[in-house]
Amino acid sequence: MSNFPKLGILGGGQLGKMLCQAASSWHLPVYVLDRDESFPAAPYATVFQRGDFRDYDDVMAFARGLDVVTIEIEHIDTRALHELEQAGVKVYPQPDKIDLIKDKGLQKQFYADHGIATTDFRLFADKEEVIQAVKEGDLHPPFVQKTRTGGYDGQGVSVIRYREEVPANLLEGPCLVETMADIDKELAVIVARSANGEVKVFNTVEMEFHPTANLVEFLICPAALDGDTDGRASKLAVEVVQKMEIVGLLAVELFLTKDGELLVNEVAPRPHNSGHHTIEACATSQYEQHLRAILGLPLGDPRLLRPAALINLLGAEGHTGPTRYQGWMDVLAIPEVYPHLYGKADTRPFRKMGHLTALGDTVAEARERAGRAKSLLQIVAAE
Amino acid sequence: MSNFPKLGILGGGQLGKMLCQAASSWHLPVYVLDRDESFPAAPYATVFQRGDFRDYDDVMAFARGLDVVTIEIEHIDTRALHELEQAGVKVYPQPDKIDLIKDKGLQKQFYADHGIATTDFRLFADKEEVIQAVKEGDLHPPFVQKTRTGGYDGQGVSVIRYREEVPANLLEGPCLVETMADIDKELAVIVARSANGEVKVFNTVEMEFHPTANLVEFLICPAALDGDTDGRASKLAVEVVQKMEIVGLLAVELFLTKDGELLVNEVAPRPHNSGHHTIEACATSQYEQHLRAILGLPLGDPRLLRPAALINLLGAEGHTGPTRYQGWMDVLAIPEVYPHLYGKADTRPFRKMGHLTALGDTVAEARERAGRAKSLLQIVAAE
Repeated sequence: MSNFPKLGILGGGQLGKMLCQAASSWHLPVYVLDRDESFPAAPYATVFQRGDFRDYDDVMAFARGLDVVTIEIEHIDTRALHELEQAGVKVYPQPDKIDLIKDKGLQKQFYADHGIATTDFRLFADKEEVIQAVKEGDLHPPFVQKTRTGGYDGQGVSVIRYREEVPANLLEGPCLVETMADIDKELAVIVARSANGEVKVFNTVEMEFHPTANLVEFLICPAALDGDTDGRASKLAVEVVQKMEIVGLLAVELFLTKDGELLVNEVAPRPHNSGHHTIEACATSQYEQHLRAILGLPLGDPRLLRPAALINLLGAEGHTGPTRYQGWMDVLAIPEVYPHLYGKADTRPFRKMGHLTALGDTVAEARERAGRAKSLLQIVAAE
Repeated sequence: MSNFPKLGILGGGQLGKMLCQAASSWHLPVYVLDRDESFPAAPYATVFQRGDFRDYDDVMAFARGLDVVTIEIEHIDTRALHELEQAGVKVYPQPDKIDLIKDKGLQKQFYADHGIATTDFRLFADKEEVIQAVKEGDLHPPFVQKTRTGGYDGQGVSVIRYREEVPANLLEGPCLVETMADIDKELAVIVARSANGEVKVFNTVEMEFHPTANLVEFLICPAALDGDTDGRASKLAVEVVQKMEIVGLLAVELFLTKDGELLVNEVAPRPHNSGHHTIEACATSQYEQHLRAILGLPLGDPRLLRPAALINLLGAEGHTGPTRYQGWMDVLAIPEVYPHLYGKADTRPFRKMGHLTALGDTVAEARERAGRAKSLLQIVAAE
């Protein structure tokens, strides 16, 4: 294996774990940096290095001797990454792209500057400026306030429906305010771009919300879209990737409005929750595709081979403590159901503890299987 | 993960590695015993334990605290396994089944005793007895001589076509002599049986030989058989599994004779070379299926979802030394081609260094892709 590149991943969570799994078929050496061996990727990394991927010195020490460095989370301090790039290490996604994306203000401005359809927005220095704008009649609820940095998994977002919610529900710090789109569907399109500019796009995924609770219940692929809309979604996602000139995966979250318009909501420069199903459902998984893109390999065939439904396995409410997967054996009796358990030592309410993909001859069959599996599986704290 | 069984595997070769990969999605703790960390499974085991799986003390020390123990090679000393079974550890396949299978004489006798179709055979205490029988006109070439134990990957087999080859080409030690079947096709059927008796069978695989060289070139699934023959092949394999009452996988190698008869050649009680394609081509891989069977989980759906062609990646002739995979990146440009590189530190001529599965809409497409990939990839020694 003398001709294999040495790959480093900053972060040993589930995305890092699934990158290690994808690399294992090629026996590719993977180095992972994260706090301790209880992280999901630790058992599957060739070398697991303890350290803080947000710490300049830890990252510099970790990257010594590596050929390619990637991330599994964009909310990091990129100073070390810029320096590594200067020193000739291949850092993908490129540090300046991470800087652009992790600041939602810069990201939105990028869309505006490059003619990419997105919801209207304004930037504010802080909460006080927002209050002032509302007071002066210059800004009217309903709107969505997002902090420019640090938002993740629904954090850093506040939906302001009525004037009475100002200022109580406003978030602190530099932020942007978006108009609320009249949303018909929420979609995600994952695109890969390699260093030589080759681009491949995965099928559009649709987030299906629970009929009463305001929660994503299933991620469905293919999305229930007419061919024209689906084609426009892919094209828009590819446009974003090409204009950003990013190397690696870009997950593009889109809104389809009730009048048929497609708007970019936000992007993530890495494997994404909306692409877990690609492991079993596609000719190439998003994880292998990310490896191919950042290692300068030919991109794989992203074709969807089976309709898929994906659910996240979250820690049960009221349970905090050592993880116990209840019912995972029962789930295995359902055909074409693939539970992925992340192995996190402790569970907390709503923590992402795993996911589950179900395939079927149709989306309806896949969804039914996923739903049945979900009702059998619970992640609780061991007594 | 407090409710997960602790699994031990004796042997850290490629089959052990692929069992670890299958276990990784469930984050199942896997302990592997083999000589040193250069073995394929080492980076993907939860715990890799140095030791000799043929050594009684090493196995006993390794198995302390494990719930289930399995093997990736049947040519082992089973004394420790019998003792572990007595002590209440679940050992699958069961040690007495390993004893039965690893002695080809006992294995053949089992088929004869249980009315399972196999080639005619006779047992001999040693080479001298074979010579005597030929001399007395009691045994006539052509025949196949096999040593009762230790045969693996084509070793321990001698084809005697002419009387002049006796005694020069005969092998030493206790042996059996089989009549040469008039073979139309060589087939393999992998069956899983769990502790509660549930049985599932994978699609029949056909070994395709090179038109001129006497070597398996492709393993093809589905096999090119009429429905009746295919059904009989599955049925015969299931019959063997059920009569042996084995727990785990059993790979059943079959001969289809020119007059349409199916004969059991031999079996292996573990994942098998002829089932590597199940990783990408089937709803459940043979590796996951073995885990399900030995852990008492419901067996998975073995359905073939895409036609597949499989090739072994062998060390190039004339190359001995540190492994270098040449051309593996080029192979990745072919759609639906999945190289598996085992990561063995050193290559030798004809050593199994990896395998490659190609899928397609048809077997012909899969075979063409596999063939193209094979022509691009060479395993050589680094200079």
